[in-house]
Amino acid sequence: MEPAGTGPPELHPGVVELMGVLAYGELSAFDRLAEDARAAPTMAGRAALASMAAAEIGHYEVIEAFLGARGVSVLTAMAPFVAPLDDYHRSTAPSNWLESLVKAYVGDGLAADFYREISGWLDTDTGETVRVVLAETGHSAFAERAVSQACAADPRLRARLTLWGRRLLGEAVIQAQHVLAQRDVLAELVLTGSADLAGIAALFRRLQNQHTRRMSELGLG
Amino acid sequence: MEPAGTGPPELHPGVVELMGVLAYGELSAFDRLAEDARAAPTMAGRAALASMAAAEIGHYEVIEAFLGARGVSVLTAMAPFVAPLDDYHRSTAPSNWLESLVKAYVGDGLAADFYREISGWLDTDTGETVRVVLAETGHSAFAERAVSQACAADPRLRARLTLWGRRLLGEAVIQAQHVLAQRDVLAELVLTGSADLAGIAALFRRLQNQHTRRMSELGLG
Repeated sequence: MEPAGTGPPELHPGVVELMGVLAYGELSAFDRLAEDARAAPTMAGRAALASMAAAEIGHYEVIEAFLGARGVSVLTAMAPFVAPLDDYHRSTAPSNWLESLVKAYVGDGLAADFYREISGWLDTDTGETVRVVLAETGHSAFAERAVSQACAADPRLRARLTLWGRRLLGEAVIQAQHVLAQRDVLAELVLTGSADLAGIAALFRRLQNQHTRRMSELGLG
Repeated sequence: MEPAGTGPPELHPGVVELMGVLAYGELSAFDRLAEDARAAPTMAGRAALASMAAAEIGHYEVIEAFLGARGVSVLTAMAPFVAPLDDYHRSTAPSNWLESLVKAYVGDGLAADFYREISGWLDTDTGETVRVVLAETGHSAFAERAVSQACAADPRLRARLTLWGRRLLGEAVIQAQHVLAQRDVLAELVLTGSADLAGIAALFRRLQNQHTRRMSELGLG
């Protein structure tokens, strides 16, 4: 029996950082998607992007509750990751509606892949939280449909959006490496989870392959 | 036994309009809250307003599913109400963070009161949908706390925000009357639900009283 007054075991500092970067990832994605929703050319597009934005907050709240139950403030956990994630969004500001949709679709997919990869390395509780967040996807069907239709009709657009998709992945990798270089305990968690440096390289390769497959589902690449 | 291929009974046109105005109310509130979230002075405030915005989309999706299951497109149902609701938001654009919080709190409460009033007049199915939407509230505790604290410390601010709260209600009433004057079937539904013209006046009075009570919970009025 647990002694009275003892809460759940303290979180590994690397897990706190991981949850912090995920939480701010959700909150900043909400922000960008909500702003892009406002620029939608149709009401259907506006509602679709608003739904994607709202889903991000659903995920954010799961993480907030998970950390809160373990005595950790999500605000504190997010703080180190505000600058790199804001940099990512600044460097990948969409210049039109189709770029917004590609970014929403790619970002959503990349996040889901990453969540899936890490859920296996974490303790049962934490992994379960990550899986709850993961289960709530499937908001990007609108983006997929709209982009494939537009690209099928215009090969030059297809070429431009293919480059855009590559840039999105490139900037994400740059920011991820930047974060790992600065946050020792997080890097250690990723290193332990991936087994070794070769494991990290393999992880990045898998994420890249899934990105390429996803781009081809949009009719790109 | 129902004949095969028969869906749920067709919706009363007034109910379609009611659901349309509620749906666009949610979508436009999402938009405004998400924009105001971006201007938050603290991360806690930003997350709180983002959560309120996301809850609006949760409500929107309930209405969308309800209409969709009955063969009605939410996009079509919303169309007549885009202009008056956009006018409301344009005429009540907050000029600072505390005005944003008061607007979020007052709007959320007014919507909840209105949903509660109408849920009784509707057929079982529709009323149930409205109650599902209603049950998902309680996101405005942050706004309540932040505004009461700021007002307790500064009586001039309290006076300014009290006027702001009155203006929000006034503009809402103006737009509601404008909508009812233009949409006959919706006006008829409201008239039937409220029993008669005196009933509508009583409904507006109850909403106003609840608004006043809510303002005093913020330390205003």
